[in-house]
Amino acid sequence: VKEIGTGLLGFGTVGAGVVTALNRNGPMIARRLGVRPVLRRIADLDIARDRGVKVDPALLTRDAMAAVNDPQVQAVIELIGGTGEARRVICEALKRRKPVITANKALLAEHADEIFGLAREQETDLYFGASVGGGIPIIRSLRDGLIANRIEGLTGILNGTCNHILTRMDEAGLAFDEALREAQQAGFAEADPSLDIDGKDTAHKAVLLAWLAYGFHVPLRDICVQGIRNLAREDLQGARDLGFAIKLLALIRRDGPEVEVRVHPALVARGHMLASVGGVFNAVLVRGDFVGDSLYYGRGAGREPTASTVVADLCDAARNLAAGTTRGWPTPTPQEERQRLRPMAEVETRNYLRFSLNDKPGTLARVAAILGEHRISIASALQRESQDTLRVPCVMVTHRAAEGRVLDALARIDAMDFVGAPTVRLRILD
Amino acid sequence: VKEIGTGLLGFGTVGAGVVTALNRNGPMIARRLGVRPVLRRIADLDIARDRGVKVDPALLTRDAMAAVNDPQVQAVIELIGGTGEARRVICEALKRRKPVITANKALLAEHADEIFGLAREQETDLYFGASVGGGIPIIRSLRDGLIANRIEGLTGILNGTCNHILTRMDEAGLAFDEALREAQQAGFAEADPSLDIDGKDTAHKAVLLAWLAYGFHVPLRDICVQGIRNLAREDLQGARDLGFAIKLLALIRRDGPEVEVRVHPALVARGHMLASVGGVFNAVLVRGDFVGDSLYYGRGAGREPTASTVVADLCDAARNLAAGTTRGWPTPTPQEERQRLRPMAEVETRNYLRFSLNDKPGTLARVAAILGEHRISIASALQRESQDTLRVPCVMVTHRAAEGRVLDALARIDAMDFVGAPTVRLRILD
Repeated sequence: VKEIGTGLLGFGTVGAGVVTALNRNGPMIARRLGVRPVLRRIADLDIARDRGVKVDPALLTRDAMAAVNDPQVQAVIELIGGTGEARRVICEALKRRKPVITANKALLAEHADEIFGLAREQETDLYFGASVGGGIPIIRSLRDGLIANRIEGLTGILNGTCNHILTRMDEAGLAFDEALREAQQAGFAEADPSLDIDGKDTAHKAVLLAWLAYGFHVPLRDICVQGIRNLAREDLQGARDLGFAIKLLALIRRDGPEVEVRVHPALVARGHMLASVGGVFNAVLVRGDFVGDSLYYGRGAGREPTASTVVADLCDAARNLAAGTTRGWPTPTPQEERQRLRPMAEVETRNYLRFSLNDKPGTLARVAAILGEHRISIASALQRESQDTLRVPCVMVTHRAAEGRVLDALARIDAMDFVGAPTVRLRILD
Repeated sequence: VKEIGTGLLGFGTVGAGVVTALNRNGPMIARRLGVRPVLRRIADLDIARDRGVKVDPALLTRDAMAAVNDPQVQAVIELIGGTGEARRVICEALKRRKPVITANKALLAEHADEIFGLAREQETDLYFGASVGGGIPIIRSLRDGLIANRIEGLTGILNGTCNHILTRMDEAGLAFDEALREAQQAGFAEADPSLDIDGKDTAHKAVLLAWLAYGFHVPLRDICVQGIRNLAREDLQGARDLGFAIKLLALIRRDGPEVEVRVHPALVARGHMLASVGGVFNAVLVRGDFVGDSLYYGRGAGREPTASTVVADLCDAARNLAAGTTRGWPTPTPQEERQRLRPMAEVETRNYLRFSLNDKPGTLARVAAILGEHRISIASALQRESQDTLRVPCVMVTHRAAEGRVLDALARIDAMDFVGAPTVRLRILD
């Protein structure tokens, strides 16, 4: 069996998972693939620490660039992370026409034009399956399995930390802070969780999915990104009462020449497949013009699921190298059609609104009137009797309305003297 | 862009879908792929009927073999179906080293050794993505996306007709016959539905999945296949009361050198992702040693979803042909490890049992005693007051027990004079 020399850059959690996979399942992989990927170099600043996996010490080096340049290394796995050293080694590898496998979503989302451009120019593949969805073959499915489809939309739960927190808030009635603390104690959230809970990690992934689906690079700063930090226990309860779960979603939609890309929490009807995705699991719903709705579900992070996808990408690279090419799939090129990002103010959604109204006659009528003036129509409303004699919580669900009109109406409502606290507004997944 | 000449054999529903996909999305596919698959021949016995799709009449022929042998045809799509003509044209194409794309599960499941053997011998790819799961890229995921994983198990809802019937029985409280008739009227079930409702279609797919996962061909006649024809409305209700849905499942499991392959209805806990799969949708849950649990969901049949997968396979073949090879992925070869099918009598499951007992003192104790003698322990039991003064329905859930012991115990119980009707027994998905 032909061997393909591989350089592994970054020997952290996922790197150790990759070594484990090749050690444990290497013969099976070679039998399935007809080619055997073999590690020739493992680079990390720390080459002393025991990762609990068996490696030949002669492979270890502290010099990532030397590993890239080693003539025995034909394909490069970048698991260093960040946008400094990782960017340099990826560019160097591509310049030498060595295919690159990476899980570095931040780097790809922020430097897409440079890195994908270089890959195209060098006719060398850049595999990034593990950058979105961990063990879920979503990038591969968009690239290969759904190639015949014009993608109409993607809706994803792409951050396991947030989904775990929301699942616990929903099922155990915890407050956000309690659920976060619990997730940190269980190792599902970082000490500084902001990248996850403020939606940026999901946004990086949304940018990559949009790019794959439409060959259209949306700068991160142009998209609506809202996290889950401000979700109140009573809104999870309110959503539940209405038959919804709350999920942090990445939403990508095409409508003629316009593409919507946004990241925010949303109410998802209980019967919807995405509402069943609990705990640290991720899922992506893809709608294609031929396939219809399809969904991909699995562990979105972690050493072994991520290693599963990194090794699958390595196998693609190895098979192509064995066939004498560095190029198995074309790097998506911008589509000829003119496409533009739909301004957020024009995006239409249904809405969940929770008002805190002073308990006086006529307040609800005033709220309804303002909504009506902004052409926002009410699908249902629920006002319960309250313990609080001053404030009455009132929940409304609206029909579809453009974001701009909703924000204008809420600004007017929140300025009224009978409103006791800013209105909570959550979008509803259609 | 390089063109790859393609012969389409069988211009029925799915064939017309393939033509539509290539007509409508051909330029987009070529841009993504870097190669353009082009139809050079379309063969069908009926070349007069209007399928509502645009085709060049010069491509049409009634001679499938001539299409295969046409030097302009480099890849062959077989959508004739059945095991006669389809088998001949597939073998002829492989002998000429033309890659074959097929959705013919019956042919592959029944003649696996011949056809896969020929593909291996000729070093020519046989793509069969559309034979299992319609638009769901499950075969592709097993082949590529999960290549690093030892597959521990697969659990699939693989027949949309059955799933639609079971969904309607569950949600609308219909009897089996009513739900079947409704499905027939809606076009979701054939006039002769036996291939679907008796589980054979699911069994064909199970054989293919087992073969992909383990390189192990299980003859259809050796596996347990039970359909949904005998399911009673009260068992769907009984399952619902216990927190379960009933689904027709294909189950494939590895346990050391033994592989379980079976098809039967089973109770699935409501919180399980598979319980949320409603209507004509299919889904497959895959457990791999690295990826953990992952799930693939979508439309399992129909013109457009199936065409989506056929065209994806065609794209693989076209890309490989453009690169100068007929072989992009090795046909799985039997694993070196000795593997054998676990005899059904040794398969262990939890069980749902519904007894019809005469209303006399001591009967329940006798039933429990017989179960105990066969080392079957009871997890829960529910006996309701009944309108029927003679028969008392009693539902039990057992802990895991081997099939053989369960059947022995039930044979003894059903021979008792206080048993009014044969005990209904359904397995429970763990």
